[in-house]
Amino acid sequence: MAVRYELIKTCAQTGARLGRLHTPHGIIDTPTFMPVGTQATVKGMAPEELKDLGAQIILGNTYHLFLRPGHELIREAGGLHRFMNWDRPILTDSGGFQVFSLSENRKITEEGVQFRSHLNGDKLFLSPEAATEVQNAFGSDIMMAFDECPPYPAEYEYVKRSTERTSRWAERCLKAHTRPHEQALFGIVQGGMHTDLRRQSAADLTSLDFPGYAMGGLSVGEPKALMYEMLEETVPLLPGGKPRYLMGVGSPDALVEGSIRGVDMFDCVLPTRIARNGTLMTSQGRLVVRNAKYVSDFSPLDPECSCYACEHYSRAYIRHLVKADEMFGLRLTTIHNLHFLVELMRQVREAIREDRLRDFRDEFFDKYGMEGNESGF
Amino acid sequence: MAVRYELIKTCAQTGARLGRLHTPHGIIDTPTFMPVGTQATVKGMAPEELKDLGAQIILGNTYHLFLRPGHELIREAGGLHRFMNWDRPILTDSGGFQVFSLSENRKITEEGVQFRSHLNGDKLFLSPEAATEVQNAFGSDIMMAFDECPPYPAEYEYVKRSTERTSRWAERCLKAHTRPHEQALFGIVQGGMHTDLRRQSAADLTSLDFPGYAMGGLSVGEPKALMYEMLEETVPLLPGGKPRYLMGVGSPDALVEGSIRGVDMFDCVLPTRIARNGTLMTSQGRLVVRNAKYVSDFSPLDPECSCYACEHYSRAYIRHLVKADEMFGLRLTTIHNLHFLVELMRQVREAIREDRLRDFRDEFFDKYGMEGNESGF
Repeated sequence: MAVRYELIKTCAQTGARLGRLHTPHGIIDTPTFMPVGTQATVKGMAPEELKDLGAQIILGNTYHLFLRPGHELIREAGGLHRFMNWDRPILTDSGGFQVFSLSENRKITEEGVQFRSHLNGDKLFLSPEAATEVQNAFGSDIMMAFDECPPYPAEYEYVKRSTERTSRWAERCLKAHTRPHEQALFGIVQGGMHTDLRRQSAADLTSLDFPGYAMGGLSVGEPKALMYEMLEETVPLLPGGKPRYLMGVGSPDALVEGSIRGVDMFDCVLPTRIARNGTLMTSQGRLVVRNAKYVSDFSPLDPECSCYACEHYSRAYIRHLVKADEMFGLRLTTIHNLHFLVELMRQVREAIREDRLRDFRDEFFDKYGMEGNESGF
Repeated sequence: MAVRYELIKTCAQTGARLGRLHTPHGIIDTPTFMPVGTQATVKGMAPEELKDLGAQIILGNTYHLFLRPGHELIREAGGLHRFMNWDRPILTDSGGFQVFSLSENRKITEEGVQFRSHLNGDKLFLSPEAATEVQNAFGSDIMMAFDECPPYPAEYEYVKRSTERTSRWAERCLKAHTRPHEQALFGIVQGGMHTDLRRQSAADLTSLDFPGYAMGGLSVGEPKALMYEMLEETVPLLPGGKPRYLMGVGSPDALVEGSIRGVDMFDCVLPTRIARNGTLMTSQGRLVVRNAKYVSDFSPLDPECSCYACEHYSRAYIRHLVKADEMFGLRLTTIHNLHFLVELMRQVREAIREDRLRDFRDEFFDKYGMEGNESGF
């Protein structure tokens, strides 16, 4: 088995779990946030900087890497870890989400998905077997089963057919997987916002005995309350001895709420994407450093933060860099936001260890100035 | 005196000088190459990375910083060093070159230059007094006198009038300078490609007893042989106890040829600018990493290089990043090119110490595959 989940304890105040995920490239403390390195790089960051801020695992996007530079090149390089000089764990998604959100001229059949590259219009095909082969070439520690992520909102009948197909695809991924001892393949529970379909999907996938389970098709535009409801329906159906991964979630409030509901892993482009626009996550809430009021503010982005950006640079300097389109500005805002989420998850784990995650949530939300559980992201 | 030049020795094979420039923020081994940090950042680089690759001094551009974020903000921040978190020496230019190359609707009078900002069209004015005040606000270790850099080619009469005005402006800069003990103000010898005007300019400026002298108006489009001829005419007219700075020169061959002719300091955007286009300086010559032939080349950019990029990443990976417009690709190519020039200057200093700079030049040019003294830059 390529990965092993070790449950350390469950929070007495919530359903949150403190654990460790053992992988071929190292141990991940859970619950964890995974920075996204779409094109074999977390935008703007060196691997050493990711390590310095405490990232234990990063994510790669199969769709993007399949298009460019291609999985055969990455295989030839000795795998994704060697190609990009990252020796800690890597999780790759299956490409499913991007095929449905980025590609053009999609045609879905039972066999798989035919589509055109959003880069150059090339006609391409991904299937459970192809997505598995591509991820085997990457050598990621954790691979994801090829799925369809239905849009929100969507007709019940569409979601039903899609979810059933995703279950059949999951079985084909397991069969196609050639390196189960080196790479763990996780199943993805779908079912849209329909509790009966979520239950069916969870039953289908757990019967296949994956080493870990993701919840997909959430954080796709639905209200957060609905997402939490779906989590509450789904998480209890997943085996306690396996890790649980909530895909595409990265707002501070949702990381805390997700952990409370028993999620172990999260990923999202949110912190890195908003950083490139000069928007920061801070202990006092959202901060848009481009705003004129920071023009001569020589305090750090977040006075309570100990990241490289906050230790050495002022809001005034970072504002100048962002306004002047200077790369170093984006490096600093990216470092800060990733540090903020990694540090938040460390605090979440500490709170679980001390059976006070609900108290932590209340204090954090209060300080963060959240309006009705919404962090502004 | 804010700076002191210490001559260690002169090369027995050439006119090259090994020296040390003592400044308020540290010692610079000369001859030296100064990376350019136009907008209070060397594009893409953290200060720590510049130190790691051996940069002892960087340059800031007065024109750009005057426009944005403005010298009053930098003064308020405690100076440019503090604003940008760089505690080693900084040299700022006078803004003259950019006023004449970047701004719009220029009007030159004896008083100074009226122009419009290339960013937003604002009507602005720079004069010897203003450029000096701005640089005093920056707190740079070395400031430059406000000059006009005549275009090439230009009419003799135009260059003559311009050069004479630059001499008068230099005197006004000296008078306006309020911090001579903390900041050294260098004069700039102009004179275009006319030896009599160069001689006159050198005589005018040395009579004012600046703590250092630059040669401006070179590397502006003229053949390199003509630039070297101008250097050979001008350098002997400058006092041996003061540093000599050749502005805007950064091709590997010109750094070696300039050192041979007694230049101590160089700066240029060339290494950082071409890096952002994926063009590298290597011990085997120019390398364009975007080229298809590097698609699966897993060797480093330069097999003889020990920089961070060459130690950890392949041409194939860097090509992928550059093609995918990933910031980290530009960081790696920038690190490499700056390391290449800083390391080249270290080798030049070693060759001077061992009285073999002419031999070094021949070996370097031969290996570099230069055609008739041209490095391809």
